[in-house]
Amino acid sequence: MATIYRINMSDLTVRREEADGDLRELGGRALTSALVAAEVPPTCHALSEENKLVIAPGVLTGTGAPCAGRLSVGAKSPLTGTIKESNAGGMAALGLAALGIKALVLEGMPAGDTLYRLIVHRDGVRIEPADDLAGLGNYDTVGHLFGQFGEKVSCISIGQAGEMRAAAASIAVTDIEGRPTRHCGRGGLGAVMGSKRVKAIVVDPAGGSRPEPANAEAFKAAMRKFAEALQKHPLTGQTLPTYGTNALANVINEAGAYPTRNFSQGQFEGVEAISGERQHDVILHRDGEGTIAHPCHRGCTIRCSRIYVDESGKYVTKGPEYETVWAHGANCGIDDLDAVAQMDRLDDDFGLDTIETGATIAVAMEAGILRFGDAAAALELLREVGRKSPLGRLVASGAEVLGKVYGVARVPTVKGQAMPAYDPRAVQGIGVTYATSTMGADHTAGYAIATNVLGVGGRVDPLKPDGQVELSRNLQIATAAIDAAGLCLFVAFAVLDDPKALDAICEMFAAYHNRPFSAGDLLELGKRTLARERRFNTAAGFTAASDRLPGFFKKEKLDPHGATFNVPDEELDRVFDFA
Amino acid sequence: MATIYRINMSDLTVRREEADGDLRELGGRALTSALVAAEVPPTCHALSEENKLVIAPGVLTGTGAPCAGRLSVGAKSPLTGTIKESNAGGMAALGLAALGIKALVLEGMPAGDTLYRLIVHRDGVRIEPADDLAGLGNYDTVGHLFGQFGEKVSCISIGQAGEMRAAAASIAVTDIEGRPTRHCGRGGLGAVMGSKRVKAIVVDPAGGSRPEPANAEAFKAAMRKFAEALQKHPLTGQTLPTYGTNALANVINEAGAYPTRNFSQGQFEGVEAISGERQHDVILHRDGEGTIAHPCHRGCTIRCSRIYVDESGKYVTKGPEYETVWAHGANCGIDDLDAVAQMDRLDDDFGLDTIETGATIAVAMEAGILRFGDAAAALELLREVGRKSPLGRLVASGAEVLGKVYGVARVPTVKGQAMPAYDPRAVQGIGVTYATSTMGADHTAGYAIATNVLGVGGRVDPLKPDGQVELSRNLQIATAAIDAAGLCLFVAFAVLDDPKALDAICEMFAAYHNRPFSAGDLLELGKRTLARERRFNTAAGFTAASDRLPGFFKKEKLDPHGATFNVPDEELDRVFDFA
Repeated sequence: MATIYRINMSDLTVRREEADGDLRELGGRALTSALVAAEVPPTCHALSEENKLVIAPGVLTGTGAPCAGRLSVGAKSPLTGTIKESNAGGMAALGLAALGIKALVLEGMPAGDTLYRLIVHRDGVRIEPADDLAGLGNYDTVGHLFGQFGEKVSCISIGQAGEMRAAAASIAVTDIEGRPTRHCGRGGLGAVMGSKRVKAIVVDPAGGSRPEPANAEAFKAAMRKFAEALQKHPLTGQTLPTYGTNALANVINEAGAYPTRNFSQGQFEGVEAISGERQHDVILHRDGEGTIAHPCHRGCTIRCSRIYVDESGKYVTKGPEYETVWAHGANCGIDDLDAVAQMDRLDDDFGLDTIETGATIAVAMEAGILRFGDAAAALELLREVGRKSPLGRLVASGAEVLGKVYGVARVPTVKGQAMPAYDPRAVQGIGVTYATSTMGADHTAGYAIATNVLGVGGRVDPLKPDGQVELSRNLQIATAAIDAAGLCLFVAFAVLDDPKALDAICEMFAAYHNRPFSAGDLLELGKRTLARERRFNTAAGFTAASDRLPGFFKKEKLDPHGATFNVPDEELDRVFDFA
Repeated sequence: MATIYRINMSDLTVRREEADGDLRELGGRALTSALVAAEVPPTCHALSEENKLVIAPGVLTGTGAPCAGRLSVGAKSPLTGTIKESNAGGMAALGLAALGIKALVLEGMPAGDTLYRLIVHRDGVRIEPADDLAGLGNYDTVGHLFGQFGEKVSCISIGQAGEMRAAAASIAVTDIEGRPTRHCGRGGLGAVMGSKRVKAIVVDPAGGSRPEPANAEAFKAAMRKFAEALQKHPLTGQTLPTYGTNALANVINEAGAYPTRNFSQGQFEGVEAISGERQHDVILHRDGEGTIAHPCHRGCTIRCSRIYVDESGKYVTKGPEYETVWAHGANCGIDDLDAVAQMDRLDDDFGLDTIETGATIAVAMEAGILRFGDAAAALELLREVGRKSPLGRLVASGAEVLGKVYGVARVPTVKGQAMPAYDPRAVQGIGVTYATSTMGADHTAGYAIATNVLGVGGRVDPLKPDGQVELSRNLQIATAAIDAAGLCLFVAFAVLDDPKALDAICEMFAAYHNRPFSAGDLLELGKRTLARERRFNTAAGFTAASDRLPGFFKKEKLDPHGATFNVPDEELDRVFDFA
């Protein structure tokens, strides 16, 4: 089965199709981008009925392949105006895959104010009114839904931000414990879901079954090989399970690339207090539910997730990720891990991208709305989102808009999306990715940190322009392929260092499709996806002028290296020379 | 003399240059656009030190030519991101011309928070601190300045909106009475002035003299011929002096092109109450200072300005213009002329573009912040700007930003700038101008209403796509030339209908420069200006995809004609085929 459900929210009907032709072998980002590029007018308003929200598990999702549980969501982004794919872990992708579903396509828009929920089950998709969920945060929303549909379902939902159609709104996916902690965060896709008046999607896997690869034996062998490679690599085998993603804090700070107080410095004097090591100690020191080395979905062997508790041992949120801790921490001059955890919880509950939200708070600090370092004021500012006040709506609209409304020129965005936790002046390769990614500033689109800082996949000097374009290009291609597979991006560390990991992925594809599948085929998949995305953006009006960092990165020197971003524009324009 | 003063706000120095080469014969928009295109990096942040604010009287300004007192201000726009020129009447352009000044160029940006004022006088430009003016509206600002510098100076200033660097901030120019009622409204140029920390520019014409045309006798003859043509044309000779610009309200409403309640209808049931005829009666019926047929600067023979008073005869504001009355009236469902006048006064005082502000209030109504038709709530919303509240800052940021923050998809903007008072579905020619103008939706860029509705310059059916591209193209070219001359756009009515008017302009240019100057030369000036502007925009990242109206104009039918905008995209892309 390779079922696509088209859920027409204009007339509240559902149409079932079987994917055919090219689409049949696609999944994840490759599928969402193919459908969006083919069916959404590039110049349409992202919140109009012409936009579509495509939700797709990866090609390998649900097969038992380790770390393959990502859920891709795609649309035209209300934040950037580009095509967008954002993916998350959690349990929903596994549920969809078990039901033989390649994609849900949310189309149109209802006329009235009624909110709806979708129930995806063995026999189809049901559309039901859901006004009882109106105005609820993600935690209450999924609480209601689990109460009604039982603990075996998973939920995809939006909080108040998505209902407000705010440009920083995320889409939440429930984790193993049934909490809405995994988010398709970037690009404001929650606003698109909100514009279609869909509050939640319940995925009920009852009666479903594991997708069967065409060559089951070969697939199993490849899976084992892949699991071994992940286990063997120090980052995925040791560092990530032990310290989580926030292990990066000290590393990136050491590299002078840890953006501090709205990208005005490269090192944060308070980094120790918010580091992954400290987070590890705090979680293990406190009683209660706190835990480390926790998977965000069944079948993850890396287990970089954790559960964060307060001093009394009571659940607060999942362990805030590196990007989240940075965004609400160093970038706001805040060195209080508990305050960061509270902000993470609020973000998850309101349904906000943590990167965009932290960046927006920092721009609000630059604007003088509150002081850098004032954690209480930052929390209070964030609570405005729940109050739907003008200021709250501004916070939920992202850094670029808040900067525009307050007349701030130092706003670290590309194509309207805030930069993540690496200063491009100190890591020039990630600057190339920020500038040229088809989706605005996004570290996951081509994680040059690996080779610029972590020494994974070779080494390219992070402070020099040389080799960065080639590095970013190759990573962007590889990432697009990984995102199609439904694999967690963290498998890339092993893939970059261990030829067996790459072989294993190709062997899984080959066994799944029952045809030869080389590394070249995998890269071709990435290239085709990027080329589609790029064509969409060109038709939407993006040009080379959009593939640039804000001017201050070329002018303001960043301590401690005194660095500016100096990859020439002409080189940036060569990133997509294959497309 | 053809002096250019470069005022460097980074180091607070002034450099004097004599314009040479090409620049020497340029003025107004031709000069501001030439300087901005040559000196401002197209991709820079509009509020960064790289942007420049160029202020220039027209070529014919101060010569005694009638209706030639426009002041052009140019920069990269914080509202649209395009190059921008916005011009206004008032007395300042005459003052600059009398001092032999071709342009003031405000460059750089001071480091601290000090506000400054510039004193432009016979011997140069003085930069003085002006923290005493901080936070003042335009009325209080110019009140202080006239008190200090005497009644013979004129002032160019920003209100609170410009100080906030708000994207809808205007630049005010004082009128004959010394009131800040004439505004370079569009494109947020007040925010650029605010970013350079210049609160006001005082132009002291003492010791200056009228610019002398090279051939004074020929110039005088041409002036007389021009004045006669203006007097003879019914619009400039009768309608405009008697009823002002708002004479259009009934005409455009009759044509079904009067955008009502955020462009959801083409006729307003309350038009009578806010029409130019009613305005005329109200002004003449009330005692006090109220007057019609009033010039906004010395040397204007059209005298479309008027003075609006309250019921007790007390001055409120200049007679609100057609666009202003529409923006705060029909577009907000408000049929109360006194309420509109109060909003006009607040706009002028805060320093806000009235078109953008009215459009923003209407989008706020669409968002549900207040109800259509609620004048008291609209006034209260506008007062938020003075309080610098988050909501006030949003109102001062323009319709597109407010729409984005509130998740509204029906936002009538092009390139981020709100459409003026003509629905492009009922007047297809103005839709072509909105879509393709180098400066976002702007009626003055190519006033197709003339030929589509008023029967000036021939007739092109407003409801059909045929001929609209050619009409808009020709008008955009002619307008760019008129804007270079410093002539009020209203001279175009005579120019379109009476060959003598066009001849007279060419003869004035010829006599001024003392060389042959044909109609072809005039159009060439317009074409060169447009081509420069267009190149800037292309380098800034604008493409054909930016030259489009919002999707709903192609889908939602407009009563009473049931019209949609149907000029094909391919035709829109041919508007600039000369450039």
